[in-house]
Amino acid sequence: MFEALKQAVYDANMELYHRGLVLYTWGNVSQCDREKGVFAIKPSGVEYEKLTPDDIVVLSLEDGSKLEGDFNPSSDTPTHFGLYRAFEGIGGITHTHSTCAVAWAQAGKEIPCLGTTHADYIRGSVPVTRYLTPDETERAYEAETATVIIEAFKDKNPVHTPAILVRGHGPFTWGKDGAQSVYHAVVLEEVAKMAMYTASIGEICALPAHIQDKHFLRKHGPKAYYGQKGK
Amino acid sequence: MFEALKQAVYDANMELYHRGLVLYTWGNVSQCDREKGVFAIKPSGVEYEKLTPDDIVVLSLEDGSKLEGDFNPSSDTPTHFGLYRAFEGIGGITHTHSTCAVAWAQAGKEIPCLGTTHADYIRGSVPVTRYLTPDETERAYEAETATVIIEAFKDKNPVHTPAILVRGHGPFTWGKDGAQSVYHAVVLEEVAKMAMYTASIGEICALPAHIQDKHFLRKHGPKAYYGQKGK
Amino acid sequence: MFEALKQAVYDANMELYHRGLVLYTWGNVSQCDREKGVFAIKPSGVEYEKLTPDDIVVLSLEDGSKLEGDFNPSSDTPTHFGLYRAFEGIGGITHTHSTCAVAWAQAGKEIPCLGTTHADYIRGSVPVTRYLTPDETERAYEAETATVIIEAFKDKNPVHTPAILVRGHGPFTWGKDGAQSVYHAVVLEEVAKMAMYTASIGEICALPAHIQDKHFLRKHGPKAYYGQKGK
Amino acid sequence: MFEALKQAVYDANMELYHRGLVLYTWGNVSQCDREKGVFAIKPSGVEYEKLTPDDIVVLSLEDGSKLEGDFNPSSDTPTHFGLYRAFEGIGGITHTHSTCAVAWAQAGKEIPCLGTTHADYIRGSVPVTRYLTPDETERAYEAETATVIIEAFKDKNPVHTPAILVRGHGPFTWGKDGAQSVYHAVVLEEVAKMAMYTASIGEICALPAHIQDKHFLRKHGPKAYYGQKGK
Repeated sequence: MFEALKQAVYDANMELYHRGLVLYTWGNVSQCDREKGVFAIKPSGVEYEKLTPDDIVVLSLEDGSKLEGDFNPSSDTPTHFGLYRAFEGIGGITHTHSTCAVAWAQAGKEIPCLGTTHADYIRGSVPVTRYLTPDETERAYEAETATVIIEAFKDKNPVHTPAILVRGHGPFTWGKDGAQSVYHAVVLEEVAKMAMYTASIGEICALPAHIQDKHFLRKHGPKAYYGQKGK
Repeated sequence: MFEALKQAVYDANMELYHRGLVLYTWGNVSQCDREKGVFAIKPSGVEYEKLTPDDIVVLSLEDGSKLEGDFNPSSDTPTHFGLYRAFEGIGGITHTHSTCAVAWAQAGKEIPCLGTTHADYIRGSVPVTRYLTPDETERAYEAETATVIIEAFKDKNPVHTPAILVRGHGPFTWGKDGAQSVYHAVVLEEVAKMAMYTASIGEICALPAHIQDKHFLRKHGPKAYYGQKGK
Repeated sequence: MFEALKQAVYDANMELYHRGLVLYTWGNVSQCDREKGVFAIKPSGVEYEKLTPDDIVVLSLEDGSKLEGDFNPSSDTPTHFGLYRAFEGIGGITHTHSTCAVAWAQAGKEIPCLGTTHADYIRGSVPVTRYLTPDETERAYEAETATVIIEAFKDKNPVHTPAILVRGHGPFTWGKDGAQSVYHAVVLEEVAKMAMYTASIGEICALPAHIQDKHFLRKHGPKAYYGQKGK
Repeated sequence: MFEALKQAVYDANMELYHRGLVLYTWGNVSQCDREKGVFAIKPSGVEYEKLTPDDIVVLSLEDGSKLEGDFNPSSDTPTHFGLYRAFEGIGGITHTHSTCAVAWAQAGKEIPCLGTTHADYIRGSVPVTRYLTPDETERAYEAETATVIIEAFKDKNPVHTPAILVRGHGPFTWGKDGAQSVYHAVVLEEVAKMAMYTASIGEICALPAHIQDKHFLRKHGPKAYYGQKGK
């Protein structure tokens, strides 16, 4: 019944693996189907080398309950669920422990927009959440992880800034589907590395706003002209 | 009619890809044929894995108009065009977002000549442009990118210094043809990494001028003796 | 007689090699069988490319004497022996010279727990030993290396903190068997790299204790819920 | 007549290439046969992918003149020649532009012995030469490069310290033959990386002399016990 969705989620997870962003079982990709009211995600702790499309777990977008699948879903499932509920414009989510994005998350610093590579995909800084409180951690750690992410976006459009660093943990990225959320995870890791190297060379200096706008808008929105759009 | 040129540009683009300097569709290589008054370039946003020689776009070196090709040319085409017009001694251009060269571009610092690896290929520092103004950005962003590059070379010979960092963006390199511009892009990334690492170890200290000259001149010019020249 | 043990040790050593943590003959993995009173380890100085299960050396867990094998055991064997004797809960040990863990060992600094990647596998900081004294070095260097490791664990549970940095030397990791000790060696190297990068970005700031606990306990102990436990 | 020597030099050069220490045509390995009074070296500027044993150039150890080979020898040949003449205990030499060793050479700093990885192969610091003077550079640049190396060893045994950084240029390593000089080039690059990372984490602190001695002597000299020696 959910074969196409499970295949898409399987493919996106394997793409994440082949891009070199995961060690062992770290990281997971999900995708939702808002019409059917479901989302699908990688099972918890299953090795990528052994993963099959049939192992993907399907859950309700209404209440988060499991609808299909032999395995437990990723332990981060409540975070994905919370983000799908809060961010209506997104269709896929990726979580990784990719090295440089984690370094910024551990430093507790947002990644400023230092160049056009960043501006091409992400508007403004990549925000960083606060730490979860002891109470939140105890009560519902993974669900409250979504809470602190949503809090960081109260003045930002998640569709235009498709990435966040959970403080002391690591990045979540999203997009129109699972595949695009993986794409953004790869871009974020590269942008995080470039920013870290930039900081090692000199004073950090944000890209002027007019160039940030130019790069984002030549790839996004009605006046985009990058690629083969309009053909 | 332009089969050889398109093949050369295809080969140079694939070499750039296989050297690991591009992520997704980032980066592009062009080559010009000054006798025929044309240049050819990678199409915009096309994945390297799917690129074929037939996809390469051919344009006029006179007015930049498209002469042949089904796709839109790279969005950076006006920059390439401007450079071919201004720098008569060059026959190929490469643009990348390679990590370490971007880090220097984002730091807004020229790469000083710290060693013989740099001196073997590039005379003096790798210059960095100024940012484009809001007005330039609005009017003709990619064409004006050529303007700030040319401005940075008003006292330098681009044939002897075949690389530039566009501030907040990334590197452009060039050479006698597309293949050599890719070679210089690879060298620049390595030189940028070496310089970044050097800065992390100690005070930066430029290579003495007499050694810079020696290394450049043993590889270039009438008294070059590196390789199998003169055989 | 010890075929299964030798095969397990061979497999664990090859896994270490394929994970890219060893250069030339550096590094070694052992595993013990406490019921049979033996442990097995890689031979000294044998290239991984030429290693076979038959080359693995079996020694007594009682007195460290060689029981089986044509080769000399790893020169680090007395360290492994000492750790098996002191840490009853462990069944496998890995030693490497992996780059980032060595950097922390050479800096003489413990690796603080900066994020959940670390907290998922290692409780608290990764400790660093003191240097061996001239007297210890002269008397029984490898055996005394175990001594300084054990000393660093006098207030710590080695099962919960399965990693140590020997000052000026490199890491040892352990686990329930050889394979898990390799897993921990890979995790340690990644955690060491993340911590080093974090330090390069900003002030180091330890993960709050309640989040450290949460992450360790969702993967370990009776209330663990990561993966497919309890299925 | 020199087939075995040419094959050995070819193999050592290809090993250097496969270890990832060379970009394009950078780097070269030579080996000498002191009984026959000759040494053999890679030709200048020939790509590793196209190199064959027949391309290796054979020269006189007496006066440096070419004895056999269609190509020009490496432009660094006079440096190799000078080192073979001065250092009687060595049989092979490698020159590279490997990234981290070059970073130390460009920083003009010797690499202090910070850990046992270094101490296992190299006694004391890896020295760094002074810059060549304008006069030396003009007169006989490559031959004078040997001069500054030899000068740096006036109080050191090159057999025990088989590596040097030529200031502003890069490393030379040596050994009993070409293969071992390549081995030392690989070790040096790893040691240079470890030292750079150590410096980024904290204050640099040399390994105590008694541990430096212990590690060097357990691998070298009459009391060595690492590996399968004496079997």
